[in-house]
Parts: sequence; C-alpha cells; structure tokens
Amino acid sequence: MRLIICGMGVVGQSFIKLLVDNINPLYKKYGIRPRVVACIDKGGIAYSQTGLDLEKLIMVKKKFGTVSKYSQNKYSFDNPIENIESEIFLELTPTNLVTGEPGLSNIISALRTQKNVITVNKGPLALSFPSLIELANYNNVLLRFSGTVGGGTPILEFAKHCLKGDKITSFTGILNGTTNYILTKMTEGLTFEEALSDAKIKGYAETEPSLDVNGDDAAAKLVIMANWIMGRRVTLKNVDKTGITAVRLDEIKEAKKNGKNIKLIAKCDNKNLYVKPDLILEDDPICVNGTLNAVSFESEHSGKQTIIGKGAGGMETASSILRDLIEIKENFSS
Amino acid sequence: MRLIICGMGVVGQSFIKLLVDNINPLYKKYGIRPRVVACIDKGGIAYSQTGLDLEKLIMVKKKFGTVSKYSQNKYSFDNPIENIESEIFLELTPTNLVTGEPGLSNIISALRTQKNVITVNKGPLALSFPSLIELANYNNVLLRFSGTVGGGTPILEFAKHCLKGDKITSFTGILNGTTNYILTKMTEGLTFEEALSDAKIKGYAETEPSLDVNGDDAAAKLVIMANWIMGRRVTLKNVDKTGITAVRLDEIKEAKKNGKNIKLIAKCDNKNLYVKPDLILEDDPICVNGTLNAVSFESEHSGKQTIIGKGAGGMETASSILRDLIEIKENFSS
Repeated sequence: MRLIICGMGVVGQSFIKLLVDNINPLYKKYGIRPRVVACIDKGGIAYSQTGLDLEKLIMVKKKFGTVSKYSQNKYSFDNPIENIESEIFLELTPTNLVTGEPGLSNIISALRTQKNVITVNKGPLALSFPSLIELANYNNVLLRFSGTVGGGTPILEFAKHCLKGDKITSFTGILNGTTNYILTKMTEGLTFEEALSDAKIKGYAETEPSLDVNGDDAAAKLVIMANWIMGRRVTLKNVDKTGITAVRLDEIKEAKKNGKNIKLIAKCDNKNLYVKPDLILEDDPICVNGTLNAVSFESEHSGKQTIIGKGAGGMETASSILRDLIEIKENFSS
Repeated sequence: MRLIICGMGVVGQSFIKLLVDNINPLYKKYGIRPRVVACIDKGGIAYSQTGLDLEKLIMVKKKFGTVSKYSQNKYSFDNPIENIESEIFLELTPTNLVTGEPGLSNIISALRTQKNVITVNKGPLALSFPSLIELANYNNVLLRFSGTVGGGTPILEFAKHCLKGDKITSFTGILNGTTNYILTKMTEGLTFEEALSDAKIKGYAETEPSLDVNGDDAAAKLVIMANWIMGRRVTLKNVDKTGITAVRLDEIKEAKKNGKNIKLIAKCDNKNLYVKPDLILEDDPICVNGTLNAVSFESEHSGKQTIIGKGAGGMETASSILRDLIEIKENFSS
C-alpha cells in the first residue's frame, strides 16, 4: 500500500512515528504494509519508488526543516500528487477556511487520479464536502477524514459504526477545545482577555485565535458531521454562526446561579445548523470542562449517547489517520 | 434468516415491535429478512416453519400472558432450541448470576447445533464467558451480547470498532444505573434507605434489589467487558467486589466538600478487576448522575475517551439486538 504524504507538521511527524512503531502489528493484524513513496512539504519533496526510510525522513525534517534534503537527487515533478503512483494520498497541510487551499486542489488532484484520500485538513471539506464526496464516488475511491473532528476521539466512527439499524436524528456538541478552555476559565472568574491569554500561554490558542473564538473551527466540524452523519448537503456558508467574543462574565455568573454553564454549542438536526454560545445544565453529560470536546447523539431507538474526549493532539490525531488507513484497506479487500 | 426467541419479557416484546417497524429498512439497507420461526416463554412455544405473524404474536402474549396460545396446534418438541432449524438464537430469559440458568443451557444448546447466538442475559457470560466463546468458535458461529452492557448504549461496539489500530489499556466506569441513582440521591441528602425506596417507586430498582446494591450486576458487566475488550479470561469469581450498602452519608458529604462524588466504579486493567465505591472528581466525564452509565477507555495512542448513555430500557436494549443481528449478517456475507 503506497502513500503520498503532503504536509509535515506535528500531525505528519506523529503519524510517521506511529507507522514506525506499528509496522509489525499493522501487517499481522490488518495485512497492511504501508510504503511512503513521497513526502511533500513547503521546502520540496522526498521521493522513493520503493518507499522512504521513515526514520531517516523524520531525522532530515528535524535537521533541515524540510524533507527535500532527504536525498541528493533533486526531483522535479510536474504535479507530483497526480503523477506519482500510489493508493493513498494523505492531506495534512494547514486549514484555510476561506479558500480551502492548498488542501482543496491537492485532494481534487488525488481523487481524479484514483487515489483514496485521508485528510486531517478541515478546510476543503467545510467548503466543498458534497462535491468532494461526489468526486470520490465518481472515481470509485474513498475519502476519509476521522481526524478532522475530535482529533483522536472517534466521533465520526461512533456515529457511523456503532448505531447500525438505528437512525441518528440530531446531535449537539462542543467541537472546539480552545473556546471551551476559555469559557471554563471565565466560569472560574477570568475575563475573556485573561482567559484567552492564559490559553495562548498554555499552547491551547494560536497567536491569531480568530478561527477558534469566532466559531469558524466549530462550524467547519459541524459541516463535516452534518454531511457525513445526517446526510445534509451543506457547506460553511449554511451555518448560522456566533462566536464567544461577546460572552460576558456576568452572563456566565448568572447562568452558574441556575446550575448552568455557557458553552459554545454546535447543533444539527433536520432544521437547525448552528454554532452559538448556549446555556447547558451542569449535569448534562456534554457539559465538559477544559479543552475537552463532547457530542451527544439522539437516535430513534437507542436513546441519547454522549462521547467525550480530547479534541486535538498530534499523536491522537495521527491515530485517527491509522484508523482511516485500516478502514480503506478493509474496503479494498472486501 | 430464521430466528428462535427465548424469553418474552419487556425486551423480547420491544424487539418484536422493532422488527415489525423495520421490516423494510432492514431488507433494503442490510439485506436482512428475519423470520421468527419459534418463540418460547414460560407457558410454552409458538412455532411456524414459515415464520410467525409478529403482530399476532404480540397480541397473543398480551392477551393470554403466554405465546403458547398462538395456534391451536400443540407443539411438543424435545429440546426445541436444538431441534428447530434456525440461523439465530435469541436468549432473553432473566439473569441468574448463581447458576446462569436457564440461559446457560439454552446458549450451549444453540451453539452446539451451530446457531449464532445473541444474548441479553448476562448470567451465562458472567459465569462462563471463556468457555462459551470457545464453544462458539469451535462450532464456527458467533456469540454476540451488545445488550448485556449499557442497554442501548453501544459500549462494547465502541471499544471493538472505533479504535482500530490502537490498543485499549484500561477502562473505568459506572455500569449500574440503579446504584448510580441511589448514590446521586444520597449526594442530594437522602439516606441509603430513603434513596433505595425512591428508586423502587420510580421503577429503577427491583423489589429485591440485592443484585444491584451488592455490586453483582456491575461485576457481571465488568467480566463481559474484560473478556471482550481486554482479552482477559475471567469470570465473576475473579472480580474483587464491594457494593454500596456500606456507603455512609457523611462520607458522601466529605467527598462533596473536596469536589468529589462517591460512585460505584468498575475497573479493569492488566492487573485490577474490581467493583467498589470510589471517589471521582466532579468534573471527570464519568461522574454522571441519575441512572446514566459511563465508561472511560484509556488507549495507547488516541488518549482517553468516554461514552455515556442510559444503561437500560426495553426499546434501547432491543435496538442493541438489532445491531448484533446486522453484525452477524455482515459476517455471514463476507
């Protein structure tokens, strides 16, 4: 099974380590022998038709900041994603929720050349989910994206695999860890600005935190879940979205008095599709604190179920790529 | 797909209703056409080689209290579970944690005559999990039991299907709704006796509640999970078990002061296998209230994940049987 990896940030490097550590179990348990034939980052490309040496790849990336120093041969491919042969394309470039690029073009290139795609990049899906799934179906390949929602927490898998014979009618959740951390700290008495700068210090918020605090990141995940779980053909522009920047400390205190918390809630049912600060009872299972994510699913027969976990983390998200890889392999074989 | 159903209590009747309501989707989506060829309760048996009329079956059960009045023909089978041909046997008789009977003999009869078995009855598994799985493997059929843990909440499916490529290293949970309700009420100030009688009035506790309050029910579920998820070959006698009857109100108050609750916790890792009242931080995701169940799984790469839901309910548990049925069908076909 040949892989092209595009993007070598924290998740990419964690995934390579995970592969190195799991070469034997992957083969024994799932019959998978992954060969990374190309790895692309901003600085260029590392390429080997027979498979890159993964430990060397990590070392080169660490030492030179780019994988392009992997060998002395300078490869210049015209559109490597299209022209290098492989079964799987891994899209791990940073999320852009305005244009979706470069991820969107990368995924399209991969799908149209009959490569199965695993993406951890939310941007292309948030902007073009319906058409990308159509393109995958047309080319008879799979598009998988477990890591885009919940990091390592298998929220999408739960919804797809654990409730067979039943029908999910709605879901409600906290899909962004950064804003949940900020709101948790505000519940403890910090102002929005204090909580935000605390989140930055702890590494939970970016220097430019607007994607989180404006609700865009949660909205992108909501779009992915709405399409995948509820079959709603929507994109980012269909989400009714409010961030947390206007949440006031006195509102939080008032809520607290009534046994409630204010949380940034994403909700989808047959009518609604929104992200907004909302009142949640303290003993509701989705009322989780810190950077945790939580989603409650309502289904026709089996009632309400909640799944909770960390929404981020390099190794956690890398583990979701491995799950997608196994699922694609199982689809190949059957 | 032919079914024999043994036991027609709340779950059995809910399952029949679920079948009636889902005849078309089951066939369209999963290619399953279930035919209930025999239904057995304390009063006797209803039998039809071509499949019972399910709406009539429910009506007869409601009217006469037994399915044996389904037709005027009196069938007398010598061991109907062995001698009636079918692909699936459904074990829905009441749980007995001392002898496992009649469920244990029923399941053995079904497995040795090459019938796939779905059981909602915990008794046989708690007492003989390792040998029953061996018997199923030997006869090349499946033994499934989603409804034995978590009612409709797919706790076992989550552990098996949602973390592929990863390894669960331990789990910790609240597996009994009745005791969780009692402890929740005690946290609100009621004594054990008051909380228990409240639980009885609300229908959350049996008239004879010892299986719940002594921790036996939670221990039975723990055994099933330990075998299925962690590969530990254990039975009920291996569980270190303490119930909630000795939990004192002042201990609960003291815990509360420190931001903790006392919960009846079931835990399994490579060393431990216990059920006992334990201190849990209030903002731990498994610290759920009322009759809810909750389990946290620790895994090697994807971190800690928690799943929460109702642990009981006729229709919810019936939905878990449908999931098992679909899984067995998918295994047949592949």
